[in-house]
Amino acid sequence: MRTPFRTALLPLLALGFGHAQATEWQALPERPPIPADNPQSRAKIELGKTLYHDPRLSSTGTVSCASCHSVMEGGDDHRPVSIGVHGQRGGRNAPTVWNAAFHSSQFWDGRAASLEDQAKGPVTNPIEMGMPDLASAVDRLRAIPGYGPMFDAAFGANAEISADTMAKAIAAYERTLVTGDSAYDRFVKGDSGALSAQQKRGMAAFAATGCTACHGGAAFNGPQLEAGKPFLVKFPTYPKNEYVRRYRLLDDPGRFASTSQEEDRHMWRVPTLRNLVYTAPYFHNGSVKSIPEAVRVMATTQLDRRLDEPTVADISAFLEALSGPFPDQTMPHLPPTPGDLIE
Amino acid sequence: MRTPFRTALLPLLALGFGHAQATEWQALPERPPIPADNPQSRAKIELGKTLYHDPRLSSTGTVSCASCHSVMEGGDDHRPVSIGVHGQRGGRNAPTVWNAAFHSSQFWDGRAASLEDQAKGPVTNPIEMGMPDLASAVDRLRAIPGYGPMFDAAFGANAEISADTMAKAIAAYERTLVTGDSAYDRFVKGDSGALSAQQKRGMAAFAATGCTACHGGAAFNGPQLEAGKPFLVKFPTYPKNEYVRRYRLLDDPGRFASTSQEEDRHMWRVPTLRNLVYTAPYFHNGSVKSIPEAVRVMATTQLDRRLDEPTVADISAFLEALSGPFPDQTMPHLPPTPGDLIE
Repeated sequence: MRTPFRTALLPLLALGFGHAQATEWQALPERPPIPADNPQSRAKIELGKTLYHDPRLSSTGTVSCASCHSVMEGGDDHRPVSIGVHGQRGGRNAPTVWNAAFHSSQFWDGRAASLEDQAKGPVTNPIEMGMPDLASAVDRLRAIPGYGPMFDAAFGANAEISADTMAKAIAAYERTLVTGDSAYDRFVKGDSGALSAQQKRGMAAFAATGCTACHGGAAFNGPQLEAGKPFLVKFPTYPKNEYVRRYRLLDDPGRFASTSQEEDRHMWRVPTLRNLVYTAPYFHNGSVKSIPEAVRVMATTQLDRRLDEPTVADISAFLEALSGPFPDQTMPHLPPTPGDLIE
Repeated sequence: MRTPFRTALLPLLALGFGHAQATEWQALPERPPIPADNPQSRAKIELGKTLYHDPRLSSTGTVSCASCHSVMEGGDDHRPVSIGVHGQRGGRNAPTVWNAAFHSSQFWDGRAASLEDQAKGPVTNPIEMGMPDLASAVDRLRAIPGYGPMFDAAFGANAEISADTMAKAIAAYERTLVTGDSAYDRFVKGDSGALSAQQKRGMAAFAATGCTACHGGAAFNGPQLEAGKPFLVKFPTYPKNEYVRRYRLLDDPGRFASTSQEEDRHMWRVPTLRNLVYTAPYFHNGSVKSIPEAVRVMATTQLDRRLDEPTVADISAFLEALSGPFPDQTMPHLPPTPGDLIE
């Protein structure tokens, strides 16, 4: 796992595209950026995987991180918006956890600077995991005797069970959730047969259309900015079209909702395009069901372009080549709940 | 896995108990009974594990078999009663799926003759997984292209995706959920140091008190009856004591609720006592939080006996020796949801 991986770069021109602007196609690194204050370790990752799957971090004991971001599938929940405790529906589509570590900020609006920060959010969100505060969540973990030795193994003897160590462990686990062996990655690394002819056409069209302006880089989520700095884009940039009405793309003010700054209205972090096959429906409100329709909407709302249907099909085929495979994982063994913890 | 396992029998007398009635202590077989019409296969088990963890078998796409019967922990959900779709609460405590294959019938009242029958129940229960009918659940599976090849691998080319094949696959997976290497099992197989002195005292007291009258056999759930025939016992047998009131043990009429036969009033299938450390709270209504209290209640309500506290502690220590270990499992890879399946 610690072998450094040299990112393969394949100039677009080598593909025979005569376009002036060469796109650097990058395979996904094996490891995402790792913050200096939260190094990876086997024990920490195992603890993080356990916490990630532990529904006792929710008020009802029924909702875990994995409930809405299932790593048994596309890292989300195949719903337009998620359902939290007491059957409550959230306001935005659950982003995939796969390759989330390649985002320089988290949540749709980039309001969390790190996976560590993000991990604390849903726990106390009243319509997600619904704990009254982080201290209550930590109290739960402290009351489960099996967690003590796991925190010690991850953070050293007599480690504190705290919101910070909990979040660090979850983030360390999430940094292992990388899908860098897709057909696209194999193609970029030199396997010219990994993509079909249509997918290769779609790859060229994806760049020529202008999609790479925002969806560049190895994770197709834009330039790798410094940790904590979101790569934000206005969506929709071109709001006067039928897609904006049909899919209610202006209903949610985007980053404005968390900052109240006028310049953040309808600003969104650019999401990864990896694993779209697994993450329907699409967009922040889960309003679009298919990849071809998402391609049409984006070309229109962001580039003011109407693509012909063969091009839509080609780009969609290319996007499908950014899928999986999801590495095998063992299930965690959750430590038992003492009876007196049960309400 | 197919090596036949000779059930170890250890006469109680060998432990030095002078009791007239020798108890045959049995280790758990590696394999539970396998019905002739549903043989195990690797492909079927993998399909079953996938279906077992697939929340798309619920109306909201949020509740899977594993939601209430988590194999990452004790095979249940550490709640008094489970929470299904739309936050609805069930009426009875979720029984553990671990070693459920050693029960000759399923559900608290034994109303399902097999694991196959049981698997169909919660899917259409309006307060559990909430599908309108089994046909709707099957339609969902048929609409997920990735399931076709998995059913073919499990049941042969062009296999039908039906409620029956779905249930057979889930049951085949559940028959792998066996915890036969507990401290107790190791003791019975000859490792005399596997139990502490207190646990050995508790083992003797468990038999001498009369617990084995119902909780006999390798799974501590009574005699291995023919498939489909539940081992039923009246609970509470002695209803005039404070425990019955405190824990509302007469509120639920037991098997009567499903048969409307007067002789079934307060009749219950005897549950396994394995993995109690992981399955608090206890009893059909999840009203009792600790193993010692469960021991006190059972001695009083079933045997009209008041145990002294050292005996309660000894029996509780013995029961803890019936726990785990839970075998390692890989997570299933759920096939993706086509966008047009999303409502």
